[in-house]
Order: sequence, then C-alpha cells, then structure tokens
Amino acid sequence: MLAWIDGRPAEQLPLTDRGLAYGDGLFETIAVRATRMPLLERHLARLAQGAQRLALPLDLESLRAELEAFADQLGDGVAKLIVTRGDGLRGYAPPPAARCRRILTGNPPAAYPAAHRERGVRLFPCATRLAEQPLLAGLKHLNRLEQVLARGEWQDPAFAEGLMRDTAGRVVEGVFSNLFLVREGVLLTPALKRCGVAGTMRAEILARAAQTGIATQVRDIDHSELLVADEVFLCNSQYGIWPVVALEERRWAVGETTRKLQGLIDDLLGNSP
Amino acid sequence: MLAWIDGRPAEQLPLTDRGLAYGDGLFETIAVRATRMPLLERHLARLAQGAQRLALPLDLESLRAELEAFADQLGDGVAKLIVTRGDGLRGYAPPPAARCRRILTGNPPAAYPAAHRERGVRLFPCATRLAEQPLLAGLKHLNRLEQVLARGEWQDPAFAEGLMRDTAGRVVEGVFSNLFLVREGVLLTPALKRCGVAGTMRAEILARAAQTGIATQVRDIDHSELLVADEVFLCNSQYGIWPVVALEERRWAVGETTRKLQGLIDDLLGNSP
Repeated sequence: MLAWIDGRPAEQLPLTDRGLAYGDGLFETIAVRATRMPLLERHLARLAQGAQRLALPLDLESLRAELEAFADQLGDGVAKLIVTRGDGLRGYAPPPAARCRRILTGNPPAAYPAAHRERGVRLFPCATRLAEQPLLAGLKHLNRLEQVLARGEWQDPAFAEGLMRDTAGRVVEGVFSNLFLVREGVLLTPALKRCGVAGTMRAEILARAAQTGIATQVRDIDHSELLVADEVFLCNSQYGIWPVVALEERRWAVGETTRKLQGLIDDLLGNSP
Repeated sequence: MLAWIDGRPAEQLPLTDRGLAYGDGLFETIAVRATRMPLLERHLARLAQGAQRLALPLDLESLRAELEAFADQLGDGVAKLIVTRGDGLRGYAPPPAARCRRILTGNPPAAYPAAHRERGVRLFPCATRLAEQPLLAGLKHLNRLEQVLARGEWQDPAFAEGLMRDTAGRVVEGVFSNLFLVREGVLLTPALKRCGVAGTMRAEILARAAQTGIATQVRDIDHSELLVADEVFLCNSQYGIWPVVALEERRWAVGETTRKLQGLIDDLLGNSP
C-alpha cells in the first residue's frame, strides 16, 4: 500500500495522535484517474470548510501540491487523505501550537459491480438514526461511529447501500453516499444543516444539473416524500451514480433524469457510458 | 512514555487501524495508585457495555490481566486504554473477523491544583451542545469532537471546566467530568440516555451515597434546576470531586454534602482529606 505521512513514506502513526484519541480530524476519499483528481477542487473546498469549523491550522496550498505528487505515484485508484490535529497533550483542549498531521494512503479503485450503476440497487432501511449536530453537519470528520453502526445492520449483499434518517425521521443520505430524488422534473437532495456529509459528487451533480437547465432544490425531505418520488438515486465520489430501484415494498424504475445525470458525469470517473 | 499494543511495548500504530479511520472503538482513563486500580471493576463494566453496543469482540478477562500487568509497571499515574476494532477493510462495514487492538499508554497523575478540590471551581458555559444519540449515550467511545470543540471555547485558566448541555438545553455534564447537584438533601445527576459519558466516579459516588443513606436521583435536569441547586459539584476518575462555586452570575458556597462525599471517596485516589 502506498502510504505517506506528512509527505514522506510511512506506515505507522505515533500513539499520541489526536485522530486516534478523539477522531480529531477530517478525511477525504479522492478518486484518481490517470494521475488526475477530477473532483480535487471540491475536496479541497470541503477540507477548507472543515478546517475552519474545527480550527485546524491546515495549509491548503501545500496540501494540494502533496496530493498532486501522491496522485502522480498512484496513477489510478483511491487516495484517502486523513488530516488530524497532530499530537496531543493530555485532555481534549486543542494544543495552542498544534501542527496538523497529513496521512495519505493509496489503493486500487473500489470494485463495485457494474450492475449497480446499470440496473440499480436496493436500499437497506437502517434503524440507526443520525444525531443532529449542526456544528459538525456537512463535514467529513473522523467521528463515524453512526456509519459503522448503520453499515453493521446488514450483511446481505442484495443491499448495496443503506438509507439513513435523522432522529426526527427525515431522510438524509446513504451510509457512504448522498441521496437524490426526482419529483415532477425537479432534482431534490436533503439539506445537510443538522447532520450528514456534503459529498463532492453531490455538489458536482447539483452544479451540472443546474447548468443543463434541470431545476434543483436542497431542503428537508420527509420519508413520505421519498416514497412518492418518481426517481431515486445515490451518488459518491468513487462510483458516480447508482439508481435506487427498491426500498422495502417500494419499487422504482431507473428514470430518465437519473440516466441523463449519469451521462453528465461519465467523464469524471471514466465509467463507460 | 510506557506504551503497549496488544500486550507488547510499541509506540506506533498501523495506519489501517479503524480507531484512526472512524473513531471505531472505546477508551478508559484509569487511575493507578501504588500499582492498584481502585475503579477497575467499573471501568471493565463500562467497557463491557460499550463492546456489546458496538459489537466489538473484546475478551474482558484477558484485558483485565493485561491492565493489572500494566499497572504493576506504571506504579502511580494514569493508564489510558484504547480498544479499537483493529485493522479495517475499506469502508465502514465492521470486518466479520475483526480482532480488537488494545493500546495502553501510561503517564504520571494529572497535576490539577489542589485548590480546585478545596475551594471549588468556576464553570465555563459552553455553547457547544451535545447531540442526542441514544445508541452511543453513556459510552466512552472515540468520537469526541464535541468535547474538543467545547474545550476549545475557553483558554482562561480561571475556568477549570465547562458546562455542556444537550440540544434541548438540559444540563448534562462537564467536558471531562460528570455533574452532580444537591437540592434539599437529595443528590441529583443527569440521566445519560441521550448523550453524555457515564463516568466511573459518578457510578462510585452514586453507590457510596446510597450506602450512606443519602437519597439519590438520576433523571433529566433543566438548566433552571441547576441554578436553584443548593450545591453543585463535578467528578471524574482522576481528580475525584471538585465543588462548583460559580457559573456566570450564580455563586455557590462549598456545601456540606459535597464535603461529605469528598471524604467518602478519599481512599480511592489517595487525596489528602
């Protein structure tokens, strides 16, 4: 496994790192295709927002250069970046002179069945609810026990993903995906002000849809609204778009808008059209 | 620093550990006095509950033996135990054959001013609220960004601790302490069904108070009820009991029940009476 810490090859982390102690940091999972990172600007933008909210002293320009050098070596695959607040004193207090630690690991592209993209997926209805924490909502931080619990709810590979709701019952996202609905020609995705991860592919889809003249809305979405949607799909930065064809008793056909959006992002991940 | 991984001296962690990736694990901060761990049974009980809720395959009997061997070497101080789900595959799914990793680090006892215990402390009113997540409430898990944010709210050493409330406004705990009130002779502490960490010293104080004939209640507590309390104090497994003497405009004297309870736990940490 290709692995760097602070720009140098390394495979071990000091036990004093605050990422281990408290999940005190952020991460990004970045698709690399022929040494290029198609969504790099969106990953950096989310990191900047996270660093600001967590008061992490992160130098984004040197990080960008490091990511580009790493992608050059990786070639094709997934670059996972973890940024932590570095080594800790004892206790929760952020050390005043904290120096962020950057951890980069590279792996081959995730091997998802092509059928997920082509014929769609079934959603598992997760019982684990997302807690409402506006201070952390939208960020891809290292506190991910809710996702671990939710993903542990099913083993049956018939379910490619799980649906997560918040404690008030609104639909929010998949365990490792964002969620979109199409209803009467409008593209809808849940607002992520209270919980959820604001995915880079979600942002890219919203932008490309708007450019193409598709109306978009980002707002709270109740479960009942999901059930009456004309089309439903999932997205993330690694697999692109998966149509959703089943949730409990509800069935959907793969819709026209979903197919159109798949076409619009084909260039990003090198998926065959 | 004395440091073991899985029972052997080590100071570095593989980058594939799920504790780093997701905060997928638990921790305990265990006071060691003359090689003894006075609250060991309560730490093991909380670990057992956490392991059960997170479905971590943890062998508590071998862990107990390891902790005892570690305490023998440490002598006096703080033994911090982190238990993670071990190395991960990619993705949130708990690996079916996960093997927990045990990380033990030893440090000298925390050096808090004796005045905190004797004359009491001021509480900082944290703006960071605790999200309500019943699935994780009570556990000392590795997802601690809320505490990092809360502790980052103040630098003034005049505040020894901060008060944390939940998103509904109830008072819950300190950033690294549990909270108790005394009102008309009854000892009260917030229920921790939605959020918060169920501390080992909190459990010990509840047990010893009841044995001494002090009435105890564990239930939801509104902020207004805190303000009318006769006595307020904090506790944790390292420092014992700190009376609270100020929160914003409110002042309290150090009360009789607080002093009595300090006396009841003196033997645990070797604090001078």
